[in-house]
Amino acid sequence: MRYKITLAYDGRSFCGFQFQPNLRTIQGTLTDTLKTLLGDCTVTGCSRTDSGVHAKGFVALIDAPAGTVPVGRLPMAVNCILPPDISVIAASEAETDFHPRYSAHLKEYEYLINASAVRDPFSSGLVYEYGRPLDISKMNLAAGYFVGTHDFSGFMAAGSKITDTVRTVFSCGVTENGDTVRLNITGNGFLYNMVRIITGTLIYVSEGKIRADDIPEIIESKDRSRGGPTVPPCGLYLKSVTY
Amino acid sequence: MRYKITLAYDGRSFCGFQFQPNLRTIQGTLTDTLKTLLGDCTVTGCSRTDSGVHAKGFVALIDAPAGTVPVGRLPMAVNCILPPDISVIAASEAETDFHPRYSAHLKEYEYLINASAVRDPFSSGLVYEYGRPLDISKMNLAAGYFVGTHDFSGFMAAGSKITDTVRTVFSCGVTENGDTVRLNITGNGFLYNMVRIITGTLIYVSEGKIRADDIPEIIESKDRSRGGPTVPPCGLYLKSVTY
Repeated sequence: MRYKITLAYDGRSFCGFQFQPNLRTIQGTLTDTLKTLLGDCTVTGCSRTDSGVHAKGFVALIDAPAGTVPVGRLPMAVNCILPPDISVIAASEAETDFHPRYSAHLKEYEYLINASAVRDPFSSGLVYEYGRPLDISKMNLAAGYFVGTHDFSGFMAAGSKITDTVRTVFSCGVTENGDTVRLNITGNGFLYNMVRIITGTLIYVSEGKIRADDIPEIIESKDRSRGGPTVPPCGLYLKSVTY
Repeated sequence: MRYKITLAYDGRSFCGFQFQPNLRTIQGTLTDTLKTLLGDCTVTGCSRTDSGVHAKGFVALIDAPAGTVPVGRLPMAVNCILPPDISVIAASEAETDFHPRYSAHLKEYEYLINASAVRDPFSSGLVYEYGRPLDISKMNLAAGYFVGTHDFSGFMAAGSKITDTVRTVFSCGVTENGDTVRLNITGNGFLYNMVRIITGTLIYVSEGKIRADDIPEIIESKDRSRGGPTVPPCGLYLKSVTY
């Protein structure tokens, strides 16, 4: 039996998605929990979220022995035994050729920033505490330049070994609601740290350290040192994956 | 110097407001933190929230030695050294006759319920996991009967030693937003566990275990056993206090 499941998790107490011995990871926690319910099974994720990164719509494939739990019962059954910071929000049968990473057409990420000088005690570790106002218009002007098909190698963490660095960004925009500033970005895929570097670059634009109009040239330069900083993982959410 | 401060706190890791030796409390944490900044000072709260109860607008009075930190600087200065689950959101000079409990005219509480069968990993310990739909119309019909000046002794935790059990509820209503159901209640004061028992009673009305029309008689009976259960502390928020 192959299940496609959608997960939400609060990444604060996890060392990212991927299994690592002796560390609390999503893949490890999920595999251990599912084994008690489904027997020997494997869990494959749609991406490797970093330590401290959150998800509202992470997709994973579960390969389990046949005829154990009906797919309609799976979310309830699994949530009863999962820890409270991870939850299965949907499940369906996976088609035979489905792969959570390679079958994905579109991924959506969100990055949350607190622009208020006052910390919200309910959001500790769930937003980036920037602590001062941001220029949303300037940020949106710059955000528009990321849309399209580009070689994003200048917006990738140094040391990444990926060779195909061309990605298509479908949309990129910044909104504010009270003191919460929100970047939403969709694309056919993202390089390592790409969303966090784009967010850091938009913050530099707000601060006047980079001009919005210079973004195309910075992308073309493929030079990591031209963009803004990599903002912290705690503000990042994998929102959805479309197949 | 007497400061009136407004606090927000995530109650999950606190054993309530009131100081208790060897336990992590709001009053204890705040007093310890403020001592490093203001010298020897005392903290008086507007109420004793229970273990696990949260606040978005708790008011406290700080009595501190003269001429230490200007009131405008206080929130920032204190937040830099407070732990992340508690935050000072406003501060002003307190008038000489101000008392955070006795000067209060109105208190507003909110109670949050998750009506979805699926847990939200970001809300663990921040909502009551009810897990099934609620009948909002029925609940509102019943909620209206709590408004007014009544002897609420039937809606007080057994064993409470308070003798004046008459309180005025100014408003009481239930709304829903997606799967989140929200009770908002304002009054001149609340007895011990009163908001949680009213919420439990409204849930019983939704479940058909109590008829909305029976609420006036249940209030009049002053019999704790006639109402619904005391719902858990994790859904409760002290939202604001008006002076």
